[in-house]
Amino acid sequence: MVHMPAIPEYSSAELLSKMDAMGMPNELRESFRKCIDFHTYAAPGMLIGVFMVDYALTLLGKKPEDKIFVTCETTKCLPDPPQIIMHATTGNHRLRVLPIGKFAMTLTPFSAKESAEGIRVYLDKEKLKKYPTISSWYDNSPSFKPATMKKQLADEILAAGQGMFSHERIKMRVTHKKKWNSVTCPVCGDQVPEYMMEGDKCAACGSMAYYEKIT
Amino acid sequence: MVHMPAIPEYSSAELLSKMDAMGMPNELRESFRKCIDFHTYAAPGMLIGVFMVDYALTLLGKKPEDKIFVTCETTKCLPDPPQIIMHATTGNHRLRVLPIGKFAMTLTPFSAKESAEGIRVYLDKEKLKKYPTISSWYDNSPSFKPATMKKQLADEILAAGQGMFSHERIKMRVTHKKKWNSVTCPVCGDQVPEYMMEGDKCAACGSMAYYEKIT
Repeated sequence: MVHMPAIPEYSSAELLSKMDAMGMPNELRESFRKCIDFHTYAAPGMLIGVFMVDYALTLLGKKPEDKIFVTCETTKCLPDPPQIIMHATTGNHRLRVLPIGKFAMTLTPFSAKESAEGIRVYLDKEKLKKYPTISSWYDNSPSFKPATMKKQLADEILAAGQGMFSHERIKMRVTHKKKWNSVTCPVCGDQVPEYMMEGDKCAACGSMAYYEKIT
Repeated sequence: MVHMPAIPEYSSAELLSKMDAMGMPNELRESFRKCIDFHTYAAPGMLIGVFMVDYALTLLGKKPEDKIFVTCETTKCLPDPPQIIMHATTGNHRLRVLPIGKFAMTLTPFSAKESAEGIRVYLDKEKLKKYPTISSWYDNSPSFKPATMKKQLADEILAAGQGMFSHERIKMRVTHKKKWNSVTCPVCGDQVPEYMMEGDKCAACGSMAYYEKIT
């Protein structure tokens, strides 16, 4: 489990008043407000994610309340905007996170078939040439100094908006909910779905053991 | 990616008025309201999760705004309440989901050390003997009939509250944020963190390939 320190950025109020001054549409500004509250701070990757979700929905011609599945290609910040804006959450199985390490996400509307078509939006390195602060932050370059450049980074993200993205049409296989049986793990005695057993023990007694009891 | 159909339950308004009639404390009722909205429906596992988070915080003597890390032992529904109630989200790295298949979660306050101590709360099979509908639902038993028993299940969850849980004190290792370098994948040409490479290609070109381009 990764314990990450909170990184102070612009305050939520400061950012929202900048958005007002830019004349940002109210619905998008409201998405930023809710996402900053949920995430607890205005992380740069999360701000980019709000623009990314907004852009992807526009490309698909869909609304946030439509039933759309999201795959995020990074664990960092980006999974939060689709949860808040589109209700594609970790717990309702409309959000999947793959630890690939790219700032990209795919959106696929619900499909009853074996595959779904949708859109992939990604941070485009070529387009970032116009945005040197975002570029140095994304490259994790030594030229990006978190202590002094965070506000500049947020300003550049707001100025760039959808201008930092490209997209492509994609399709992927989908797995539909299957019937399952409950079994008892012979090691811990707990019940788990049979398809989650690792041979003769459950994952908690096997590869996913992660805690010790304190007695 | 699992496409799960939405399962109708009590409406949010019906459930909230039941909570009012029970004299549920306002703060807890508000947690239910927000979590149902986020999750988009009152799934049984999500309702159990709201009680579970509330119970775990009480046991720890902590408030929802404290910096606490959560590990959920199932992907099903349970990851949503800690996100909404405690702001331990998928994107801010305070939520981890392990696909073990148990209705259990651990809460560990922030620790700057190599390990963290906390509490594990779990659905206790022994205690479920008093709650036959929850028990048959959790067992995935043929005696649980979703078409007719969903409201009965929600009623029993509300009646049980914290009475269905047990807990234990635990400790676990924690990983702190590390420095990393960005590298270019020679296959796709995209940048990814070096520690995410799978040998000579990135995970998107390797084990995590999940889509095809439509040209």
